[in-house]
Amino acid sequence: MSERTWSRGAAAVATLTFDVDAETPILAEGRHYADQPMVMSHQTYGPDVGVPRILDLLDEMRVPATFFVPGWVAEQRPGLAASIIERGHEVGHHSYSHRPPTSLPAGAERADFERALKVFTAQGIEIAGHRAAMWSASHETLSLIAEYGLAYDSSLMGDDRPYHVDTPHGPVVELPVHWSLDDWEQYAYLPAPRIGSVIESPVKVEQMWRAELDGMRHYGCLFNVCMHPFLTGRPGRMLALRNLIIYAQDRADVTFARCRDVAAWAREDTHIPTRPLPTYDLDEAVYPR
Amino acid sequence: MSERTWSRGAAAVATLTFDVDAETPILAEGRHYADQPMVMSHQTYGPDVGVPRILDLLDEMRVPATFFVPGWVAEQRPGLAASIIERGHEVGHHSYSHRPPTSLPAGAERADFERALKVFTAQGIEIAGHRAAMWSASHETLSLIAEYGLAYDSSLMGDDRPYHVDTPHGPVVELPVHWSLDDWEQYAYLPAPRIGSVIESPVKVEQMWRAELDGMRHYGCLFNVCMHPFLTGRPGRMLALRNLIIYAQDRADVTFARCRDVAAWAREDTHIPTRPLPTYDLDEAVYPR
Amino acid sequence: MSERTWSRGAAAVATLTFDVDAETPILAEGRHYADQPMVMSHQTYGPDVGVPRILDLLDEMRVPATFFVPGWVAEQRPGLAASIIERGHEVGHHSYSHRPPTSLPAGAERADFERALKVFTAQGIEIAGHRAAMWSASHETLSLIAEYGLAYDSSLMGDDRPYHVDTPHGPVVELPVHWSLDDWEQYAYLPAPRIGSVIESPVKVEQMWRAELDGMRHYGCLFNVCMHPFLTGRPGRMLALRNLIIYAQDRADVTFARCRDVAAWAREDTHIPTRPLPTYDLDEAVYPR
Amino acid sequence: MSERTWSRGAAAVATLTFDVDAETPILAEGRHYADQPMVMSHQTYGPDVGVPRILDLLDEMRVPATFFVPGWVAEQRPGLAASIIERGHEVGHHSYSHRPPTSLPAGAERADFERALKVFTAQGIEIAGHRAAMWSASHETLSLIAEYGLAYDSSLMGDDRPYHVDTPHGPVVELPVHWSLDDWEQYAYLPAPRIGSVIESPVKVEQMWRAELDGMRHYGCLFNVCMHPFLTGRPGRMLALRNLIIYAQDRADVTFARCRDVAAWAREDTHIPTRPLPTYDLDEAVYPR
Repeated sequence: MSERTWSRGAAAVATLTFDVDAETPILAEGRHYADQPMVMSHQTYGPDVGVPRILDLLDEMRVPATFFVPGWVAEQRPGLAASIIERGHEVGHHSYSHRPPTSLPAGAERADFERALKVFTAQGIEIAGHRAAMWSASHETLSLIAEYGLAYDSSLMGDDRPYHVDTPHGPVVELPVHWSLDDWEQYAYLPAPRIGSVIESPVKVEQMWRAELDGMRHYGCLFNVCMHPFLTGRPGRMLALRNLIIYAQDRADVTFARCRDVAAWAREDTHIPTRPLPTYDLDEAVYPR
Repeated sequence: MSERTWSRGAAAVATLTFDVDAETPILAEGRHYADQPMVMSHQTYGPDVGVPRILDLLDEMRVPATFFVPGWVAEQRPGLAASIIERGHEVGHHSYSHRPPTSLPAGAERADFERALKVFTAQGIEIAGHRAAMWSASHETLSLIAEYGLAYDSSLMGDDRPYHVDTPHGPVVELPVHWSLDDWEQYAYLPAPRIGSVIESPVKVEQMWRAELDGMRHYGCLFNVCMHPFLTGRPGRMLALRNLIIYAQDRADVTFARCRDVAAWAREDTHIPTRPLPTYDLDEAVYPR
Repeated sequence: MSERTWSRGAAAVATLTFDVDAETPILAEGRHYADQPMVMSHQTYGPDVGVPRILDLLDEMRVPATFFVPGWVAEQRPGLAASIIERGHEVGHHSYSHRPPTSLPAGAERADFERALKVFTAQGIEIAGHRAAMWSASHETLSLIAEYGLAYDSSLMGDDRPYHVDTPHGPVVELPVHWSLDDWEQYAYLPAPRIGSVIESPVKVEQMWRAELDGMRHYGCLFNVCMHPFLTGRPGRMLALRNLIIYAQDRADVTFARCRDVAAWAREDTHIPTRPLPTYDLDEAVYPR
Repeated sequence: MSERTWSRGAAAVATLTFDVDAETPILAEGRHYADQPMVMSHQTYGPDVGVPRILDLLDEMRVPATFFVPGWVAEQRPGLAASIIERGHEVGHHSYSHRPPTSLPAGAERADFERALKVFTAQGIEIAGHRAAMWSASHETLSLIAEYGLAYDSSLMGDDRPYHVDTPHGPVVELPVHWSLDDWEQYAYLPAPRIGSVIESPVKVEQMWRAELDGMRHYGCLFNVCMHPFLTGRPGRMLALRNLIIYAQDRADVTFARCRDVAAWAREDTHIPTRPLPTYDLDEAVYPR
């Protein structure tokens, strides 16, 4: 058996992922933003304009993708999650409220996690994996994922290939992300809440992601791109994404897959490493409480 | 009737808009800046140097544009608004003082809105539309626009094509804006008040806006660019804008128009959507007060 | 007489200016930085390594320049100012301590201004013009410049061609600056005091400044570039500056001059405008104290 | 004897340096980050994935390098330092805990410095030089380096060629660094602790560092690049580093060396300057306490 079982022989596997956050990351910063029509419209653009456009592009390119959806968003927009699955894509668990787990008091994370699961169950959406809000997974996050029988998480950065994480409820496959493959740091901008700094050109982003894809083809990695419909759904950025997909397809050694498929391949691969969630015994004289 | 009535058959409609803010956004940050000659001169460059240069460029290129002017600026510089209209362009309502509506106490927005209208009326300037200061429209903003019989707003981001917004005083056409088509995030820089981060090259901005225009030609959108004479009026940036206009004209499928014209076309178009100003019933356990 | 007396018939006049700040802008942020060797060495690089390298480049290119030097720096490094003049360049007044005038209590600005003049007088350096620390000139700054018989200031942004400013002690020629022609916003970075954000490539800076020079050749402007030896003195940035000078020389319609020469030409030009230092009578209901 | 003894006749000497910080810069910001798996995984990627990849690239390119390792990291990962030396590279002292010396109370720096030395001694790692955490060397830092018989420091910015620094325990060779040759300001990003702003493309970084190398070949400098395995170890950035090395090798006038070798060459060079650590006698009326 080849060492690269998880990639099914491809030089790199591309998982196009879209975090359909809509209003949630802003409401998590402060509920008063709900009264600011410009800010809210900036976010509703995502599901209203971005998602249909993205679904059409994926059809045209014939590539599968994964959409991580907060439970609150699925609840507010009945039919949204189902419409994604109907087009052949995956819907993943992306918390209920998009509050980062590391900021929640004890118990609140479990409640948030379970509430999202109930929404998806009620809508008949079968969930195989999870991505933490703001990628800020806690130790509890990984444990909940295993406890509820999900196959994978996609929030950590300990490698650029799939790896296993052990939890009290058993192992979870990690499909690692990275800031450099996230459209947020390139495109996001709002003055309040203050997100983003300079708004980059799609020309730069396409160039940077091509460079990363080439590096990942060289090193045999998971090209796990994280995009947001309210950002990448803009016209010029959509064409850049289209170019990137064409570039990858032209290389002929890149496989596009849903996250759940990569997680399944990784489970069958006996060579991928286990990277424990690190715990630290820190000297208080050096790193004080 | 074609679905694209609002665009009069063009692949994309380009509305070049110039927010003639002059000193107002800085004074809104603190009146003590009035005593800082460098900061004030940075702002007066807009009407003194930028606006005449922009008017000449528009003449040369034979394209119409829309200038959003705060009432305070029109008042301080009698003749400025009229000189814009004489050259065939539109003057729009851009508040009186450039204080963002979402930051104003109850009642203050109406007073500010009406005060600007009085200035324009006294100067014989007929107003058809409005753009909120900092784009920070409140629910009240949209309502005032309808109450006073203006045809359109240009502050929200719920789409990249014109749409209708319902208000208690009837519908308003929204001509949506976006941070990525604003020269502020690319060019603005002052250490105090702290605006901007890195100052981008006009070469980058031209490239990025070309990419967005191409995307908008692909998707049939409104290329609603927001510029500021104190920023885009600089020599190298003017040449980049000139290049952008030539690029658009060479495509032959882009129509340049004033905002009021697009608003009128949109009113006649029975296919454009209504996007309600969203209101939210938020669970306090999730998004606390 | 041509309307362009001030430019002596050139399409654009280039004044290369170097602010030899050395440690002063950092000490003005807090004297405790004097105890941080890395931070101080970052600043001493300017006079120790940057200035000699810059002087050699100017010799090689045969172009004159203007060096704005804080009195404190001239005092700490006797011979520095004289060595600049010996190579055919100008030394300008850049405050004593590099504390911005708008931040100084009443009386302190005059003391600082005069203290620098005494240093230059003691060193036999004749001063014709002034640039405010951080460009933050106060009304008093312009008045002091006229009172002490200097010909020009170079701190404001009300135009991109020379203009007159009236003061209680008579008119001063303003040679305007701009953030986009300053190497600080492109190259500066220190974590504490926090200056700069992203460090830009000399390739971008050269491109942006070429674009501005071309725009200024188009509009007949003063290409008044502000550089800092501790920033532009780095090897790769020096080569970019060299390329920029060659580019300007190859255009054949750009004249290089010292600031004092441009000020003298402007004084003879009866067509350049007077732009008063603006004063404002602000409605407290709109812009509250 | 040539003036360029220290460079052994090369136009520029390239010291590729890798600061193997792992978790330490984050823990120095607050020990509570130890409980955030995403943040920690972002850091462990450095030694787990980045370092092996970098060692392989250096083998392929046949260039030596220097790895600065905090004592805490060497302790937590026994065998890491030795594995670097086995491949022909140098391990340098990079503090124990990565707390910046200028932030430590009296006495704490010495304790931290000595604790790291003990770790390296216990692992049989011979240390020749030092780089301060965050480059924030204090006066004490340089003195400790001389006291413990190390040959060089690499934290200051007073030149772009090696120089001597005098300390109470004798002279130290300084191999200067600079923010513009650090991958941190180009690539680093975390929302909390807040590091970085925009994430740059490897295409830009390669271009900028090529420009600096060309400038340094022109001026005869030390191309002392500082990289971090958790940043530069990413696939696309590794290919950019590979391209940069090939570019330097193709020039044929660049010598790659370990820092300790350059320090030895500099010691033999009688022409390199001594740049004292500056001390200041500041007027309190100008720069108040």
